[in-house]
Amino acid sequence: MTSTMNRQIRLAARPVGFPTAESWSHTSEALRTLNEGEIQIKTLYLSIDPAMRGWMNGGKSYIRPVEINEVMRAGGVGIVVASQSSRFAVGDYVSGSIGVQEYWTGMADDKYGGFYKIDPALAPLPAYLNALGMPGMTAYFGLLDVGQPKAGETVVVSGAAGAVGQTVGQVAKQKGCRVVGIAGGKEKCDFVVNELGFDACIDYKNSSVKDDLKEHCPNGVDIYFDNVGGEILDTVLTRINMKARIIICGAISQYNNTSAIKGPSNYLALLVNRARMEGIVVFDYVKRYPEAVKEMSQWMAQGQFHTREDIVQGLDQFPAALMMLFEGKNFGKLILQVSSEN
Amino acid sequence: MTSTMNRQIRLAARPVGFPTAESWSHTSEALRTLNEGEIQIKTLYLSIDPAMRGWMNGGKSYIRPVEINEVMRAGGVGIVVASQSSRFAVGDYVSGSIGVQEYWTGMADDKYGGFYKIDPALAPLPAYLNALGMPGMTAYFGLLDVGQPKAGETVVVSGAAGAVGQTVGQVAKQKGCRVVGIAGGKEKCDFVVNELGFDACIDYKNSSVKDDLKEHCPNGVDIYFDNVGGEILDTVLTRINMKARIIICGAISQYNNTSAIKGPSNYLALLVNRARMEGIVVFDYVKRYPEAVKEMSQWMAQGQFHTREDIVQGLDQFPAALMMLFEGKNFGKLILQVSSEN
Repeated sequence: MTSTMNRQIRLAARPVGFPTAESWSHTSEALRTLNEGEIQIKTLYLSIDPAMRGWMNGGKSYIRPVEINEVMRAGGVGIVVASQSSRFAVGDYVSGSIGVQEYWTGMADDKYGGFYKIDPALAPLPAYLNALGMPGMTAYFGLLDVGQPKAGETVVVSGAAGAVGQTVGQVAKQKGCRVVGIAGGKEKCDFVVNELGFDACIDYKNSSVKDDLKEHCPNGVDIYFDNVGGEILDTVLTRINMKARIIICGAISQYNNTSAIKGPSNYLALLVNRARMEGIVVFDYVKRYPEAVKEMSQWMAQGQFHTREDIVQGLDQFPAALMMLFEGKNFGKLILQVSSEN
Repeated sequence: MTSTMNRQIRLAARPVGFPTAESWSHTSEALRTLNEGEIQIKTLYLSIDPAMRGWMNGGKSYIRPVEINEVMRAGGVGIVVASQSSRFAVGDYVSGSIGVQEYWTGMADDKYGGFYKIDPALAPLPAYLNALGMPGMTAYFGLLDVGQPKAGETVVVSGAAGAVGQTVGQVAKQKGCRVVGIAGGKEKCDFVVNELGFDACIDYKNSSVKDDLKEHCPNGVDIYFDNVGGEILDTVLTRINMKARIIICGAISQYNNTSAIKGPSNYLALLVNRARMEGIVVFDYVKRYPEAVKEMSQWMAQGQFHTREDIVQGLDQFPAALMMLFEGKNFGKLILQVSSEN
């Protein structure tokens, strides 16, 4: 372990609406010596996720809130730079909950960090924060386990060019479904159709989602994987089929509301169509991650599955990167590169 | 067949908001002679249901709308007074879609009417429009098939003193659940606790649903059977447990809205709790009605299951009776008696 400083970004205040500069504090502290059983990880990449906004709120949720003055929670990929544990060796690449900081130090079997080794030969490191990481696992198990798609069914996914959406659509195509994405802007729509192989993509910023759903889903919608909530959820509800499944993965359109969240006015479509709306939280599937990684990495190796990342450089850019996400400015899975791989 | 007149109530205009006198026309026409295969039924009791409000609207739903100038749709119980069919004899008691009129005349195997014989020795005739009729079937299959209750779980049901709610709560008690009702007024609450055996009942008109849910559901809510929508649905969503099931049966608080329906702002509780919200339409279970009738009539015979009807007299009272329902003025399953049983 070299003697050096660890720079960190901490939650300074719980935001109302969008996070601002006042939401964060930038701190620095000396790295400490390891105790028996501990490891030290140098952060390479951090995952920037919509869920982060929820972690900044107080109150009960599926995971405890980040406390004031705590290092902001973030999943990431790093390299072990010091080890007093038999589980990890220096030079191992790992993934887990690193936090928004340059180094993570703690027990190798820490339940909060939950680090596991990853193989940089199998896929580029950023892919482990995308299709082979939490967003990919969310997409895979949300679609297959909650959505139960059958070949020939029509799957619609919002946030189609984002980390979860990319994977939902590609997995659905592999399972023989018709896939229609919803994304913001022509560039994103072209990407999911031309590079990821979706059947169609609706540009919600420049066309009528209602009209385009009619055109691109002539047989109605059997599965809707919702990452955005708000008006788009309501519009899709008007097009669902009997026994449709709505997978509630997120509601990025609503996370920064200063007033109440807008509930889906058309929820009675669930009644008319005997349909189901169900939530997914990826942590429930931890034990089954290997089956998803195995299947998706095979598709990748066969050239049938693609990922796209949007990589922002530098720890200090974390607050700006998070805002990019809420403004829809990222194109692909948003990742913060904290240190170079070499 | 005696030569007489058939009085009817028809839909005159589609209402905006609550139905008014202008929504209805009162007509009368001579009864016609039967053709081969036809029967004529004298109406005894008609079921007054929240779903009627939906049938008055145009547009696609789970069932076609009632057309302008068509006799208003209503399920009912009657007695066969003339028959040119081998399927029914004069004197048979039947249940089916009679409509708001004194007599129904048509083919015995009419798909719209869907008449089937009922046994007045097994239960009083009004029970066939309550626990042993559509509301009871809705409650039974919605709770058991969609809700999948397990002994020891907590079931909350709104509209607890109403036709569906009474049955939901009593079936849930039979299955070993803790049952908490929500109803309007002390009298209704006392009834469901003291006469139907619910564990508790929350009077939404005179107390805080939020506080009372905390008190009466110390282990949270596993199943919520929703008949009302609106604020109550939103409040219950704040108390649901992991893997909770929300059964969407109706939304009587929203049916007469002149503006958009209020969607559940707290629907992201489905995500946090990996919970499910699912619609039920009773017609999907037609083939399984006999199993429900068998089980519930056994409980009735054993004195373990009770029903309560609120019976209004006279065909002309139909518009007023329907308004009672929306104003929460009925106490028990609301039924219109059109003719006496003798």
